[in-house]
Amino acid sequence: MANIYDYAYDLEKALRNSEEFTALKDAYEKVMSDESSKQMFEDFRQTQMTLQQKQMQGEEISEEEVEKAQSVVQLVQQHPDISKLMEEEQRLNTVINDVSQIITKPLEELYGTPGQEEQ
Amino acid sequence: MANIYDYAYDLEKALRNSEEFTALKDAYEKVMSDESSKQMFEDFRQTQMTLQQKQMQGEEISEEEVEKAQSVVQLVQQHPDISKLMEEEQRLNTVINDVSQIITKPLEELYGTPGQEEQ
Ligand SMILES: [Ca+2]
Ligand SMILES: [Ca+2]
Repeated sequence: MANIYDYAYDLEKALRNSEEFTALKDAYEKVMSDESSKQMFEDFRQTQMTLQQKQMQGEEISEEEVEKAQSVVQLVQQHPDISKLMEEEQRLNTVINDVSQIITKPLEELYGTPGQEEQ
Repeated sequence: MANIYDYAYDLEKALRNSEEFTALKDAYEKVMSDESSKQMFEDFRQTQMTLQQKQMQGEEISEEEVEKAQSVVQLVQQHPDISKLMEEEQRLNTVINDVSQIITKPLEELYGTPGQEEQ
C-alpha cells in the first residue's frame, strides 16, 4: 500500500488541476492585473485580517472600525472582478472543507463529535 | 482524470490504515477500557476545552483555573496509558498537519504566505 504522502500529493495535484482552482486563479490574476482593483482587494483583506485578529485576542472593536469595514465590503461587492474572485474563493473553500471532513473522518469516529458522549 | 473526492477518499483510507492511526486507536481504547483512566482523560479534555473557549472569547482566566489545569496536566502525564495516548495524538497530528500543508500548497502559492508581499 502506498504512503499517506503519495495520496496527499495526488490529491494536491487533483485540486490544482480542478476547475474550481483554475477559475479562482484566473479571477485572482484578473484582480491583481489592475492597480485599482488590486489595491481595493488588498485593503479589504487587510481590514478583515485586522478585525479577525482583534476578535481572536478579545480586543474591543470600535464603532469607527465596524463602519470602515462595512464600507470596504460594500465597495468590493460592487466591483465585478472582486466579487467574482470572492465567489470563486467561496466555491473552492467548500471543496476544501468537504475534503477536510472526509480525511478527518477516522478521527471524528474515534473521538466522537464534540459533546456527543454527554447526550 | 478522477474526481477530487475520489482522491480524498483514497487518502482517508490510507490515513485510517496507517500505523499512526491504528496506534492512536489502540492507545485511545486502552485508556477508555479502564474507568479510572477514562475519567482522568475526560477531565483533562474538559479542562483544556473550557480554557480554550475562554481564551478564544477573550474571557479572563482565574488563578484558580490555571492551577487546576496545571494539576490535571501533571496527573495525566504521570499516567502511562494517558501519556502514551497523548504521544500518539501528537504523532498523528504531525501527519495531519503535513497532509494539510501539502494539499493547500496551490492556495499558498497563489496568495503567498501571510505578510510575504509586504517584505
Ligand atoms: Ca463523559
Ligand atoms: Ca501590498
